[in-house]
Amino acid sequence: MHFTIVEGGVTAPKGFLAAGVEAGVKYAGRKDVALIYSDTEAVVAGVFTTNRVAAAPVLIDRAIVAKGRARAILANSGCANACTGPQGLEAARHTAQAAAEALGVPVDQVLVCSTGVIGAPLPEKIIATGARLCAQRLSPTGGHDAASAIITTDTHTKEYAVSCEIDGKTITIGGICKGAGMIEPNMATMLAFLTTDAAVVPDALQTAVKETADASFNKVIVDGDQSTNDTFLLLANGHAGNAPLTPTHPQWETFRTALREVAVHLAKEIVLDGEGATKFVTIRVRRAATTADARLIARAIAKSPLAKTSWFGLDPNWGRIIAAAGYSGAAVDDRKTRIFYGEIPAYDCGTVASKETLDNIQALMKNSRAFDITVDLGLGDGEETLFTCDFSFDYVKINAEYTT
Amino acid sequence: MHFTIVEGGVTAPKGFLAAGVEAGVKYAGRKDVALIYSDTEAVVAGVFTTNRVAAAPVLIDRAIVAKGRARAILANSGCANACTGPQGLEAARHTAQAAAEALGVPVDQVLVCSTGVIGAPLPEKIIATGARLCAQRLSPTGGHDAASAIITTDTHTKEYAVSCEIDGKTITIGGICKGAGMIEPNMATMLAFLTTDAAVVPDALQTAVKETADASFNKVIVDGDQSTNDTFLLLANGHAGNAPLTPTHPQWETFRTALREVAVHLAKEIVLDGEGATKFVTIRVRRAATTADARLIARAIAKSPLAKTSWFGLDPNWGRIIAAAGYSGAAVDDRKTRIFYGEIPAYDCGTVASKETLDNIQALMKNSRAFDITVDLGLGDGEETLFTCDFSFDYVKINAEYTT
Repeated sequence: MHFTIVEGGVTAPKGFLAAGVEAGVKYAGRKDVALIYSDTEAVVAGVFTTNRVAAAPVLIDRAIVAKGRARAILANSGCANACTGPQGLEAARHTAQAAAEALGVPVDQVLVCSTGVIGAPLPEKIIATGARLCAQRLSPTGGHDAASAIITTDTHTKEYAVSCEIDGKTITIGGICKGAGMIEPNMATMLAFLTTDAAVVPDALQTAVKETADASFNKVIVDGDQSTNDTFLLLANGHAGNAPLTPTHPQWETFRTALREVAVHLAKEIVLDGEGATKFVTIRVRRAATTADARLIARAIAKSPLAKTSWFGLDPNWGRIIAAAGYSGAAVDDRKTRIFYGEIPAYDCGTVASKETLDNIQALMKNSRAFDITVDLGLGDGEETLFTCDFSFDYVKINAEYTT
Repeated sequence: MHFTIVEGGVTAPKGFLAAGVEAGVKYAGRKDVALIYSDTEAVVAGVFTTNRVAAAPVLIDRAIVAKGRARAILANSGCANACTGPQGLEAARHTAQAAAEALGVPVDQVLVCSTGVIGAPLPEKIIATGARLCAQRLSPTGGHDAASAIITTDTHTKEYAVSCEIDGKTITIGGICKGAGMIEPNMATMLAFLTTDAAVVPDALQTAVKETADASFNKVIVDGDQSTNDTFLLLANGHAGNAPLTPTHPQWETFRTALREVAVHLAKEIVLDGEGATKFVTIRVRRAATTADARLIARAIAKSPLAKTSWFGLDPNWGRIIAAAGYSGAAVDDRKTRIFYGEIPAYDCGTVASKETLDNIQALMKNSRAFDITVDLGLGDGEETLFTCDFSFDYVKINAEYTT
């Protein structure tokens, strides 16, 4: 064990303050503007949506991450500020300016993030007012309020933090994130803000963030819809006093493992709280012809509406699993394929499980909030693991009623 | 107008008989075995699922289509005979043998098709008994019974036929098909059987079937799940007495147009009757950078759970449309993109429609069983049109309860 779970989220590491306030972006009576602040300049790294339609704040943050230094993250829910043209970019800059002035930091060190409905103009004055209010309320225990302010259809806040020892110093990594629809690899309507008091060399931090994203937020699928606003940021302010980390540091692996722990935990929380989700399903693909094939198969299964509704229906319908593998584009030979629910074989190279075994699988599905499905292709050594959830009545309900 | 709509389905063309009976494959009290018969040897062409996991009957039919001659199609619902190994292939052959003996035709001219649950062993004796009963009941008005016997979660039968004049002779093309889930291009849990009394040269028939599939069954998406059993067959027995058709025949276009009319009509029927569908949505992509890009965009929109639930919710949420375009992999520039519901612009190169216009779009969605969504990328001349439907509570209900 390289790390210890600690209380709190983004304000668990030293030198980070946060706040979240009710600014009235879209609804009254809920927090919707968050501010996260480092009391000294931090190194920043990040990865963003690969959607060709990137929201205004994503364009701004990419430029800041390219320069590698930041002091604060201003985030709002209720409006995505996507497809809002030059006015949207201008509006986002105005809100960053308001935060920068209130904090007394350079505007090009204030990251901005938005989540909510696409196409609505950003209510910049409301958010600027919220930013100023947050600046007044910044607190070392304000991480939870910040976590509350960024969620949309999430049913609860998502926070996590761990500590580990590096160079004899305690370093802490904390984070908050939000889901809960438009979730798929590369990435999702997902905002994830992580902070650490570790000292990390800028290039190394960006490398660590990319690797971590691939192992965490890029492994989760709710509905396969990729948003315009996905953002994963990590601020490292060096307050722990360790020697600045690079991949050649003897404890680089310790840092990576702790960082991955936080990111994977938050990513799984997104799936567990997927819109309408009743089941958390881990898709394990083994012995595919290649790694690329394993990924194709895992994604096809995780995105299949028929597979997802079968999990909701507690239906051990492995036929939909193998059908999805078959249309994924990857090599599949049904005479060499095995499918397991948990440890129970449902299909074995042409032989179908007995009624009794299928009943046991149904009992497993019924009694477990989370279960694994393993697909063994018997063709090579390609592997992939993805985390996903079922499709329920509530997924339809939530998304049929979102803007109306 | 090159054709006239006529009564009936597969038995509308001369020389074709059909029947459908209650054999008890899975449920009592419903027709589940169908037989379609040409009273002389027919030329046959077909296209099949591209799923790597192809059902046993698909393997048998591919070999028959390669030889190009057939007398009959034996089809069952209730069991897909997929992932059933060598026993499944053997069982399918036994049912073909039973039909061949009852009809007095060679077994290698009896096509077999199955649809239903994957992995269950084919109840070959029940189907063989059904085949013999069908052979006794074959009738020139039996097309409707055959159409009834192949449906699964479809809410109604799907039949259509047209006539046109070629070489001064009346030729008729008729067809039946079934949906209704696992529907996506290339192809679907879709069985479509077409017959014609036109005389057509074998290679020309296969060319026509491929082109027709691309313009019809390969343009429809219900859920994006591609089945193991998709089959589209066309039998041409030449009873009309025209000179055998080839692409150089002066009326080849007449034949192609009539064939396409039948196939497109049946394909649209599948979408209209998609599992739980309440809306029929035509996705028109215009001025994409390339044709390939237009296809990527149309497919991403048609498969997006968020877009599909917004249609069910009568929500003019064009943001989900542009987000899907953006993650499709195709070139998209939101400053050059226009989105229309029917003729009403929702988004125009960065400008969002007024509340009043969005209300008009909502009224259009509410008052129309079918509407178009046009996405104009403003980048090139790539075009694509797809037919799809919404995702409703009933889609989840139907698929959560299918085998349990």
